[in-house]
Amino acid sequence: MTHSDTAHAAPVRKISVSVDAMGGDTGPAEVVAGCVLSARKNPQLGLVLHGDAAVLQPLVDKHAELRERATVAHADGVVTMDEKPSHVMRHGKDTSMWSCVDSVRDGGAAAAVSCGNTGALMALSMLRLRKLPGVDRPAIACMWPKRGSRDYNVMLDVGADIRADADNLMQYALLGTAYYRNAFNVSRPRVGLLNVGTEDHKGRSEIREAHDLIAAMSEIGRYDYVGFVEGSDIPAAHVDVIVTDGFTGNVALKTAEGTARLIRDLLHAEISASWVSRLAALPSIGTFRRLQKRIDPRRVNGGVFLGLNGTVVKSHGSADATGVSAAIKLAFQLAQSGFQGRMSERLAAVARSAEEHRAAIAVAGKNGQGEE
Amino acid sequence: MTHSDTAHAAPVRKISVSVDAMGGDTGPAEVVAGCVLSARKNPQLGLVLHGDAAVLQPLVDKHAELRERATVAHADGVVTMDEKPSHVMRHGKDTSMWSCVDSVRDGGAAAAVSCGNTGALMALSMLRLRKLPGVDRPAIACMWPKRGSRDYNVMLDVGADIRADADNLMQYALLGTAYYRNAFNVSRPRVGLLNVGTEDHKGRSEIREAHDLIAAMSEIGRYDYVGFVEGSDIPAAHVDVIVTDGFTGNVALKTAEGTARLIRDLLHAEISASWVSRLAALPSIGTFRRLQKRIDPRRVNGGVFLGLNGTVVKSHGSADATGVSAAIKLAFQLAQSGFQGRMSERLAAVARSAEEHRAAIAVAGKNGQGEE
Repeated sequence: MTHSDTAHAAPVRKISVSVDAMGGDTGPAEVVAGCVLSARKNPQLGLVLHGDAAVLQPLVDKHAELRERATVAHADGVVTMDEKPSHVMRHGKDTSMWSCVDSVRDGGAAAAVSCGNTGALMALSMLRLRKLPGVDRPAIACMWPKRGSRDYNVMLDVGADIRADADNLMQYALLGTAYYRNAFNVSRPRVGLLNVGTEDHKGRSEIREAHDLIAAMSEIGRYDYVGFVEGSDIPAAHVDVIVTDGFTGNVALKTAEGTARLIRDLLHAEISASWVSRLAALPSIGTFRRLQKRIDPRRVNGGVFLGLNGTVVKSHGSADATGVSAAIKLAFQLAQSGFQGRMSERLAAVARSAEEHRAAIAVAGKNGQGEE
Repeated sequence: MTHSDTAHAAPVRKISVSVDAMGGDTGPAEVVAGCVLSARKNPQLGLVLHGDAAVLQPLVDKHAELRERATVAHADGVVTMDEKPSHVMRHGKDTSMWSCVDSVRDGGAAAAVSCGNTGALMALSMLRLRKLPGVDRPAIACMWPKRGSRDYNVMLDVGADIRADADNLMQYALLGTAYYRNAFNVSRPRVGLLNVGTEDHKGRSEIREAHDLIAAMSEIGRYDYVGFVEGSDIPAAHVDVIVTDGFTGNVALKTAEGTARLIRDLLHAEISASWVSRLAALPSIGTFRRLQKRIDPRRVNGGVFLGLNGTVVKSHGSADATGVSAAIKLAFQLAQSGFQGRMSERLAAVARSAEEHRAAIAVAGKNGQGEE
């Protein structure tokens, strides 16, 4: 992606992020509030807000932080949360989501953020930005707290597609490690393949085939393959990138979010159970706040679409200002790191080798297979 | 299942639970310690411990609580955690797991508990106990804390099989609701089908087909169908039974356990970060302990095998005494409730109706389907 300078020659070099201000469940005011939070923290951030100008311009004008740095790109339509992707691809030209993605295509912004309908956003991103050479199927990657550190693990796919064959899973390993290498400055990320057990004979046939394929591609892909991992290993310290199909990944992500919310609510309930417990909790307010912050899904908000000619970040549909701001920060950092260009080079380089290996490995894999 | 009276005519009517004392990662001493915990709490419990008598008899003799109530059934062999189910079915006759399951088959015990290899335990249970009439594929059900109450939700399958078609998923709904009805005394349990979204057009084709089939069978099955649910809904208050395939269910279960452990560790880390935070946490020790107990996976330990002629509970492989005791308690309660007999009657009654409906619904379902 190119870094776009803003027209009025600001003293710092700006990187513009394109924001679909109408998508999501919380409404444009909350999205704009997220933009304000981001703008306050980051003087290098420029913003292009897409949506109904009659709604957005007054919101932008209200905030001094945005006036100089945000432009509004008018779009009449809005993609609703239950609209089918195919319908949006045919009839969605006037929507804020389409306009938001096209900003990246046209070079007006270095990355796009939307809280809208995931399926529609992926469909439009594929249609307008196109897939990178060598990528059959883009994936959505999300971050996960890593046990015993302040770092993160990355899991993909968490919902771009509901099926993945062995080749797709191997490509996810390449996409995920390219992302991890750039986001966390780790030269050889460690890859694990999500399964129901760690023994070689476990799991569906496409997963056992991917097991062999991902192992075989580790030198070309410049990653270390740690083998099968289980659901309990997603935050594990011995792995960096967890590869799975979009159905399983989506269920795992939402299950973890649901579990974190459940535990937070149980803690609140225990604390507010009586005046004794409320009083007793007072000295630990700092401890609770730090824990809260660490497990708050809003702060790792943002699924990154990998495998496209352009950076798109999907924010949670119900993201509030804090969540939107986290997604904008992620989009900004990815644009700033120049990761898109490097990923594209590497993928082109490995695409041919992978294809050659695949056929050989599939045969070897079948011979080594056990029962299901 | 019949309730077996112990030979020495105890004053209370005993229900015997058969325990595979050699399975699991923690060793027979820990399993026996779990039996002691259970025996202390429950005067009606009888125990049959399967495994190496030279190891087990001294452990039993050491505990006054067990001497009168536990018998040891000698078995030479042990099923290891990485043994293939097919191998155990052919060569596992001398193992403690085989002997444990056969105790239920022979009427020597009302239910079986093992911490061993899940795949082997399911294979042996199917071989020795046989499936209930009308059941194609047994499932493993687990409990999940329910939001805003002290009750539980039930999810199945969490690992009996790695694939499930629409018919299997519908049978899981029948098995799960039969279990829920008896375990929690709820006349019409509410069923949700796990998917990546709640819109009708979402998910894989077999899941959309199951969606129609489960809805159509709700009157015959005496449950309410709430439609698709997502990973974040597994602990939801608006559903009781969550139906999914064994691959997805296993990943979701382990992801939730991993998330709960991660949050517990983060809380510990925050509290012990400094002497100030340690001191501040002292008054809240009671609050933390209650939370700990509520989210402790050991206390809901025990996957129940549904769809067999006999009750088998799979305890976590790494279960300690508390976990083993929870699994024994669950097996005892299921045997006591007579749930096995009632489930078998109901399943036989609905099997024919389901088959008739299935064909009609599959056609109707195809017409109503959207894209993926």
